[in-house]
Amino acid sequence: MALYNFQRRGMLYVISAPSGGGKSVVVQQLLATMPGLTYSVSVTSRPMRPGEVDGREYQFVKREEFEQMIRDDLFYEWAEVHGNFYGTRESTVREALDRGTDVLLDIDIQGGMSVKWRSPDAVLLFLMPPSMEILEQRLRARKTDSDEQIRIRLENARREMDFWRFYDFVVVNDVLEQTVQSAKNILEAERHRARRLRQFEK
Amino acid sequence: MALYNFQRRGMLYVISAPSGGGKSVVVQQLLATMPGLTYSVSVTSRPMRPGEVDGREYQFVKREEFEQMIRDDLFYEWAEVHGNFYGTRESTVREALDRGTDVLLDIDIQGGMSVKWRSPDAVLLFLMPPSMEILEQRLRARKTDSDEQIRIRLENARREMDFWRFYDFVVVNDVLEQTVQSAKNILEAERHRARRLRQFEK
Repeated sequence: MALYNFQRRGMLYVISAPSGGGKSVVVQQLLATMPGLTYSVSVTSRPMRPGEVDGREYQFVKREEFEQMIRDDLFYEWAEVHGNFYGTRESTVREALDRGTDVLLDIDIQGGMSVKWRSPDAVLLFLMPPSMEILEQRLRARKTDSDEQIRIRLENARREMDFWRFYDFVVVNDVLEQTVQSAKNILEAERHRARRLRQFEK
Repeated sequence: MALYNFQRRGMLYVISAPSGGGKSVVVQQLLATMPGLTYSVSVTSRPMRPGEVDGREYQFVKREEFEQMIRDDLFYEWAEVHGNFYGTRESTVREALDRGTDVLLDIDIQGGMSVKWRSPDAVLLFLMPPSMEILEQRLRARKTDSDEQIRIRLENARREMDFWRFYDFVVVNDVLEQTVQSAKNILEAERHRARRLRQFEK
């Protein structure tokens, strides 16, 4: 019997949030529960934080190594944030998409804007903190940053907040389970996007 | 505390399928389970089928009445299908959207194309039958059409099938529960679409 079938390219799913927006937990839960979604481990020049593992949260490299990788044109996107470099390797993304896998990019807003420019077909989700006060509470609860670092992060966050307009989707990250559910709905829905499908009969 | 809040316009959610695509059941289940979604009852000149109620499935009018309504410019979209008229009243749609409610339009493919032209912001979902054979089985099981009517519907369906490309989303309507879930995901996801949001602090 001739069934209608659809083939789909892998897609880029970008999740960004101002610092302390609670992005990491959302990303972890999304990856744990969504089949066909793979995480693209970013490269960074920032120091490892307690509990982090090289190659899991990030691939940690020295500042000079990162600069060499920029010159070698190895990055799909990269950005300097709070004095540290962050980047996505082009090869990682390309290989996954070619396999038909969706790729989750947990990157900052500069990175998100680069991806939108390079891949207009990418799906960009902005996690909005419920308020500046809650954002500050979350940053302090993390206990990884000094007061001065928190002050800088909040200042940056306030500027970054306005960028929700340039993202495709916005979810206010108030109740974690609801945020994760919304992030899943968006991915599931976009998997049915007609312009990413190719029809064949078998 | 200054919370970030978003206001949202109502949106048009169009679901179309070739005749016998199983659209009505999907639409019923969607309406029964999604808050904030209202059904726009279409006007038609086709005769009432057994089990149908005037004002529920359709507003049934005489052919001449429909033609008068066209002349009075009362329709948001209308189309002639299988020799009968079908249309959506402009006032119904406008009033619901103004209230911030999402409006479900269960209309045929001609109607869907009109809506896309008039409201590029509408969300269009195409339900694809798993195969022509299954489509024919469904039409026969309905027992409301003569053999000749079924032949015409299948011929039209074959032509209509290609229009999935012009819709925003495509779901192959194989397992009902999965189709309904996908239709819900799409609506939920689109409610977070940034370009439909307006931010305010309170």
